[in-house]
Amino acid sequence: MAVSGTDAPIGVFDSGIGGLTVVRSLMARLPHERIVYVGDTARVPYGPKSPDTVRRYADEIGRWLVDEGVKSVVVACNTATAYALGRLQDTLPVPVVGVVEPGARAAVRAAHGTPVGVIGTVGTIASGAYERAIHAIDPDVVVLARACPLLVPLVEEGWLDRPVTRMVAQEYLAPLLADGIGALVLGCTHYPLLTPLLAELAGPSVRLIDSADETALVTADTLDRLGLRAAERATPPRHRFVASDAPDRFLALGQQFLAGAIDHVEHVTFG
Amino acid sequence: MAVSGTDAPIGVFDSGIGGLTVVRSLMARLPHERIVYVGDTARVPYGPKSPDTVRRYADEIGRWLVDEGVKSVVVACNTATAYALGRLQDTLPVPVVGVVEPGARAAVRAAHGTPVGVIGTVGTIASGAYERAIHAIDPDVVVLARACPLLVPLVEEGWLDRPVTRMVAQEYLAPLLADGIGALVLGCTHYPLLTPLLAELAGPSVRLIDSADETALVTADTLDRLGLRAAERATPPRHRFVASDAPDRFLALGQQFLAGAIDHVEHVTFG
Repeated sequence: MAVSGTDAPIGVFDSGIGGLTVVRSLMARLPHERIVYVGDTARVPYGPKSPDTVRRYADEIGRWLVDEGVKSVVVACNTATAYALGRLQDTLPVPVVGVVEPGARAAVRAAHGTPVGVIGTVGTIASGAYERAIHAIDPDVVVLARACPLLVPLVEEGWLDRPVTRMVAQEYLAPLLADGIGALVLGCTHYPLLTPLLAELAGPSVRLIDSADETALVTADTLDRLGLRAAERATPPRHRFVASDAPDRFLALGQQFLAGAIDHVEHVTFG
Repeated sequence: MAVSGTDAPIGVFDSGIGGLTVVRSLMARLPHERIVYVGDTARVPYGPKSPDTVRRYADEIGRWLVDEGVKSVVVACNTATAYALGRLQDTLPVPVVGVVEPGARAAVRAAHGTPVGVIGTVGTIASGAYERAIHAIDPDVVVLARACPLLVPLVEEGWLDRPVTRMVAQEYLAPLLADGIGALVLGCTHYPLLTPLLAELAGPSVRLIDSADETALVTADTLDRLGLRAAERATPPRHRFVASDAPDRFLALGQQFLAGAIDHVEHVTFG
């Protein structure tokens, strides 16, 4: 296992731009770490696609990140984590962290014995990954999972608080709320942009769980445990952003997530 | 130019399953022709992606179809037609037909001098392909184009006549209807599944244009002109269906479009 040195960057990937919410949390918690982010915008979304196809894409990007010299990989995509985390952990020569287990852990803590709701893409929900992760922590927690395939397109349309978005979210959440969930896992990196609306619909008794912060925490712990944390730097680290589709579109959207921290996007073709 | 024989199949491709509406029209109009259909379900959708990426995908599939021995190629995807038709016509050794020009022609005929509305994906609308095609036929026609990125996800969710779908469609159509369109081009192969709802919202003075039938007509004319029509057969021709993502999902959705005409789907990886 050829773990790279402490000065090597952390590799982060997602099917598109949603994983930049994880990058934002990593930057806040690990301000001295360099990051190489890959958004697979030429093949986005992963959510509706089959396990084999998602695994193939994750393999290609994981190998590319390792070739670029990263010291660890963060899978900042729920669908890719659900289908490919175990395989990446088995095959890549660096530690690999996913978003599902950290989110599951936070949800169990927040729910205090009430049922946990999970919303995500068709792939994430069909995989059962959150149920498995939650039951590995506490087998008695009731888990209510629901695929919400319209939420990503609504976010990407920028309709964050329209009547139609409210109507769609209400329909998706109704059965979960009726069953008395105490925590709701936002099991897709796009969903945190809907937090104000979802929090209002869910009401004050439901704690919303955004996996990004939890994932950054687990990443920090992993680096500490393996002695891989970067030394403090006098100047902010330079990050790299890579997209498989046109860089200009990624840059425009990325600036909404990260403001000044992103000023250039490279183009790389996978597959 | 190595045009294959009259008994060779027609190649048809789309980013996913929507192009099966074109297959249905081809089967009705050209019942003796064999068809090889490719749905690029591993990389769907094309609509939000950049011209270069869509061209690369279209090149790969076009070359694959030619290697499989097709005598012509039908680009049954509006976005791929908008970005890649000219290039495919330049580089493939068989005639290539797209969906934009046939739809434009039908719309100009139906509008009788009133403005023509065009709805489609972000890519199709941004390309300006319908405006160019309509103005090549009649430079005086006023064209009102609108990207409707939520309609495909709504169709794929199966919400064909829900209040939320009605609300989204109303918002998209309002400016076009206010400007008095007399024809509305359904510039995406998914939209014909919304025909009842769209027809009701648009009212009786607006003619809905589904490019599928027009494209089948142009394909028939092209084969006739080049002497490439298949001979009559005693038994129905065997078609082939190919998907780049899992065949089982394609098969389940494909049967909604084509019923008994599809019973097996092959898996091919592109790129």
